[in-house]
Amino acid sequence: MEEVAVVRNKQVIFKDFVNGYPKTSDMVVTSDATIRLELPKNETGLILTKNLYLSCDPYMRNRMNQTLEGAYIHSFTPGSPIIGYGVSRILDSSHPDFKKGELIWGLINWEEYSLIKDTSSFMKIQHTDVPLSYYTGILGMPGMTAYVGFYKICSPKKGDTVFVSAASGAVGQLVGQFAKLFGCYVVGSAGSKEKVDLLKNKFGFDEAFNYKEEQDLNAALKRYFPDGIDIYFENVGGKMLDEVLRNMRLFGRIAACGMISQYNLDQPEGTHNLFMIVMKRIRMEGFLVFDHYDSYPKFLETILPLIHEGKINYVEDIVDGLENGPDALIGLFSGSNIGKQVVVIAHE
Amino acid sequence: MEEVAVVRNKQVIFKDFVNGYPKTSDMVVTSDATIRLELPKNETGLILTKNLYLSCDPYMRNRMNQTLEGAYIHSFTPGSPIIGYGVSRILDSSHPDFKKGELIWGLINWEEYSLIKDTSSFMKIQHTDVPLSYYTGILGMPGMTAYVGFYKICSPKKGDTVFVSAASGAVGQLVGQFAKLFGCYVVGSAGSKEKVDLLKNKFGFDEAFNYKEEQDLNAALKRYFPDGIDIYFENVGGKMLDEVLRNMRLFGRIAACGMISQYNLDQPEGTHNLFMIVMKRIRMEGFLVFDHYDSYPKFLETILPLIHEGKINYVEDIVDGLENGPDALIGLFSGSNIGKQVVVIAHE
Repeated sequence: MEEVAVVRNKQVIFKDFVNGYPKTSDMVVTSDATIRLELPKNETGLILTKNLYLSCDPYMRNRMNQTLEGAYIHSFTPGSPIIGYGVSRILDSSHPDFKKGELIWGLINWEEYSLIKDTSSFMKIQHTDVPLSYYTGILGMPGMTAYVGFYKICSPKKGDTVFVSAASGAVGQLVGQFAKLFGCYVVGSAGSKEKVDLLKNKFGFDEAFNYKEEQDLNAALKRYFPDGIDIYFENVGGKMLDEVLRNMRLFGRIAACGMISQYNLDQPEGTHNLFMIVMKRIRMEGFLVFDHYDSYPKFLETILPLIHEGKINYVEDIVDGLENGPDALIGLFSGSNIGKQVVVIAHE
Repeated sequence: MEEVAVVRNKQVIFKDFVNGYPKTSDMVVTSDATIRLELPKNETGLILTKNLYLSCDPYMRNRMNQTLEGAYIHSFTPGSPIIGYGVSRILDSSHPDFKKGELIWGLINWEEYSLIKDTSSFMKIQHTDVPLSYYTGILGMPGMTAYVGFYKICSPKKGDTVFVSAASGAVGQLVGQFAKLFGCYVVGSAGSKEKVDLLKNKFGFDEAFNYKEEQDLNAALKRYFPDGIDIYFENVGGKMLDEVLRNMRLFGRIAACGMISQYNLDQPEGTHNLFMIVMKRIRMEGFLVFDHYDSYPKFLETILPLIHEGKINYVEDIVDGLENGPDALIGLFSGSNIGKQVVVIAHE
């Protein structure tokens, strides 16, 4: 008779709903839980995973609110683990679609091991000639977000002028590179000199600026877009959006992907220049990657060769250890990450 | 030798740029000018018109500003006549495209007679089995605006829930009726009981409410749209837009036609709920009728039978006499007009 291991299962627990800026102490790392590394005998459709890489994404802040009007996601459950995108190895499966040993990415608990019933978000990882952590970013949800947002929502044309905010983040760095490959003029904004250098030197943006050093965002935008902006890839909202609206060109497009500057405010800032949408015939369109996963195979076909040929660069900010997860997640909101924020639970 | 009449040419002169709410006294009606009712001999490409009907439209407020950032139109010239859409009879023409006796609609000065060089905005009136004043409204710029906005920008589907603000105005009343004919559920807002009655009893809206009597616009919208709004035809901006955003359905569309509530403010109100655009995957799109006049013949083919068969109703608020023009125009901003505001210079 084989002996089944019962092991410690380190977790990051969501303590309680958050108002304002989240703090590391809104989560607690615990080693109290254990898990039996065996599937229950009397139930099918389950998988048991060893979790490897976790993704820190801005939208996760919204799940920390007690109520989120109009939300496409549920709040986290106080006392339960944080949930986010991650990469896992299947240790065992009684689910017909998944086999022991396979790699998957999708929504998982922030914990070392998971017994999972709802597999609806999982994609199988077929290509392992890239770092597995890429499936939390360039080959995962943020990569798909950049792809869908740029190609489907922005309706780009060669020669368009493109502005990307939060441009060194997981999504922004890819949007800018897609736009460059498409033949656009691309400018990005970010929050530090180091990020600005990355945009210009690593990701090939035509120009980049540190928004924190600009007294007058309108003037900054006019400096880089004297003839206006055709496409704005919106990741931040707030004052930046207001000034971008003043600098859009006729028939410009705004792909509204996120508004990170607003997530920690009790009352969102007001946007005052919306009449520009009428005067300049602007289309502003929100989108969520969840609606577009049917394009995932096509996306992989597009992006894998670009990665292999070195035509797309990708920068990750990798933190080791689940116990450092809360700090990494919180860091997104002060912009302390440089590139895609990943937490490693276990290397493979 | 024929004697040429030199006649009085009453005009409405724009006095000076306006801040805040416009007043009747921002314009002056003068009978000082005269005009020679004959074309100059040494110049061609001119037409001489007798002006019959004038249109009062909200966008005209924007032309009263000294500067209008991002504008598609120029400011009015202090000391010169107000300019707006109108219907005119051609008294004489040296322009190859226009003949003496023809009727036209387009942008004209607020004056009894005009000698016109720039004929680029003029459309010929071929159908005279409807009141000529209709070419300032249902058959003119506002009618085309409603047509383009609803059919092209709103991407309607049968059964969609549609909300129209400023719904009894020239554009709103038509949008609501187009939406009803299309098989939508339609609710309108307006600023008086009389207008609300008109929406329900004359224009066939499913429901209507007086926004001035609602303490809580969010609650009012939830009352009429318990399952949310698919299409919002935006004429007002401001607080209404903010509350509509909260009540939109997934993949909703907002056709941004105008924002009359903001035109008289020094600083536009802030819109706080824009993140709903992301969460609900909303498309908000501004449009201007000027970009779509190539559809005018098709529009006439659609709407003329609807008018003749009584399937579309149309309400005008007709004021007699150019001297009453300033009051009529100003009245738009307090909502004193019931239906399309027209000024008659001379009946035909």
